[in-house]
Amino acid sequence: MPVFRIEFQTPGRGFHELTDEVTGHVRSAGIGTGLCHLFIRHTSASLLITENADPAVRADLERFMSRIAPDGDPDWTHGSEGPDDMPAHIRSVLTASELTLPIREGRLSLGTWQGIYLWEHRTRPRHRVIDLTLLRA
Amino acid sequence: MPVFRIEFQTPGRGFHELTDEVTGHVRSAGIGTGLCHLFIRHTSASLLITENADPAVRADLERFMSRIAPDGDPDWTHGSEGPDDMPAHIRSVLTASELTLPIREGRLSLGTWQGIYLWEHRTRPRHRVIDLTLLRA
Amino acid sequence: MPVFRIEFQTPGRGFHELTDEVTGHVRSAGIGTGLCHLFIRHTSASLLITENADPAVRADLERFMSRIAPDGDPDWTHGSEGPDDMPAHIRSVLTASELTLPIREGRLSLGTWQGIYLWEHRTRPRHRVIDLTLLRA
Repeated sequence: MPVFRIEFQTPGRGFHELTDEVTGHVRSAGIGTGLCHLFIRHTSASLLITENADPAVRADLERFMSRIAPDGDPDWTHGSEGPDDMPAHIRSVLTASELTLPIREGRLSLGTWQGIYLWEHRTRPRHRVIDLTLLRA
Repeated sequence: MPVFRIEFQTPGRGFHELTDEVTGHVRSAGIGTGLCHLFIRHTSASLLITENADPAVRADLERFMSRIAPDGDPDWTHGSEGPDDMPAHIRSVLTASELTLPIREGRLSLGTWQGIYLWEHRTRPRHRVIDLTLLRA
Repeated sequence: MPVFRIEFQTPGRGFHELTDEVTGHVRSAGIGTGLCHLFIRHTSASLLITENADPAVRADLERFMSRIAPDGDPDWTHGSEGPDDMPAHIRSVLTASELTLPIREGRLSLGTWQGIYLWEHRTRPRHRVIDLTLLRA
């Protein structure tokens, strides 16, 4: 079964939509019914399914995370890479590092309002790598 | 391998146990060893494994979420569908949209106290759709 | 495909690294390309991927959880097993009960800084069981 690697540079904290790229790999693989697995090889960025229509949703998700795990909080003892270092690990733990998605009739079976995102938690640009695995059911 | 779709109407915010329905699909599929995957096609409801004995656990989970992501919080900018709109997306991101569960000797290998739930985060009734995929290991 | 069961006694709240044991099972299975699935059969402990270098990261994760879901909080109504009972369920819901990881060239495809952990949320020692399933892609 086909596997792929998705790699890119993020511009810093924020959301980077992967829906089209993942959808494309699934369509080209010719799997009728199965599963598509995504894994991010980092502990300071997440994979996410969330609402794909209103960008205010993503802005509010950032706001929420900044509220419960603020950058530069004096409680964090780990911070060798800066004030966003430990909050990035916390955000990673609270969200997903891997996602499994159903394939039906040769396509990803996402709901109408679901988009797949990489959520970068570090404030500076980073190189990110995702492993994609397809399985026939 | 068999796939199923589970659909129903939720009465609004709260927990809806899926353990018996999922268990039934696994048992009828005749897979000795494998995996059972569940995916919810929405961004304002979750799939959850939690304690299945004391309903107070689910009540406390609601209380916890209302505390960290309150309805109608003035911080949220996304709220076209009401005060529970953005909190529902936050709850979805903090929990799971998909679950993979082991099958052993033809049955779901859940722990004694584990139940599978759909957690509806919207306050009004919603139609919800779950895709179930079974894999032989 | 091979399946394994990992069982051990935790000494109480804290992190227990599983990377070497899981890596060993994958290597011995002789699967070139595939997936490795881990499932914890409990609702008061989690499976976690996080930074494997600086122990301060895990200490800060404990600190974070104690802050948002404190032991003995008067808001919790479920507490028959003590002040850490309900916080353990909350921590379980906010993190993962199961993980799927890619296998490439016969080995787990983890990032350099990623470790696999069991996160025990109960303060007293507990017996914990994890089901491991391997799939060829």
